[in-house]
Amino acid sequence: MSFLSFLLGEKKTSASVAKDRLQLILINERRGSSAGPDFLPQLQQELVAVISKYVKINPDDIKVNLERQDSLEVLEVKIEMPQPEASA
Amino acid sequence: MSFLSFLLGEKKTSASVAKDRLQLILINERRGSSAGPDFLPQLQQELVAVISKYVKINPDDIKVNLERQDSLEVLEVKIEMPQPEASA
Repeated sequence: MSFLSFLLGEKKTSASVAKDRLQLILINERRGSSAGPDFLPQLQQELVAVISKYVKINPDDIKVNLERQDSLEVLEVKIEMPQPEASA
Repeated sequence: MSFLSFLLGEKKTSASVAKDRLQLILINERRGSSAGPDFLPQLQQELVAVISKYVKINPDDIKVNLERQDSLEVLEVKIEMPQPEASA
């Protein structure tokens, strides 16, 4: 799982901020077909809607990044889920 | 986007097999909360259902891999979409 440490090997210095994070990466590689309709933006909205059924999501805590590179589209959705500070 | 070439830097030797590929990676990082219910398997099913609204998916062409590592869960769904050999 070496790519994991790569993907998640970000600074973890703020140890006091313990947040759950959910990260969705969608990679669309078009090798066989010419460019079809660009469905990623709408697909992303639906995917986030599905995820929000399972975890509480604050829309402000969603960061979306879409990159294109040749026949490659990469959609990245990062969701931070702050925990309640003190639970009874 | 160096991680892209890492993720996708697989053998591309079979040039004759030009397939579109869709890859979904879901990373659930639990830092703030103790382990809650495991929602990833069901979430995965719903995500695939959403994706299948946008692209034709043959259930046989879906490969699912779920890995756990400490507070980390990584769900990987690979979907291959063979193209029609000759389009009119």
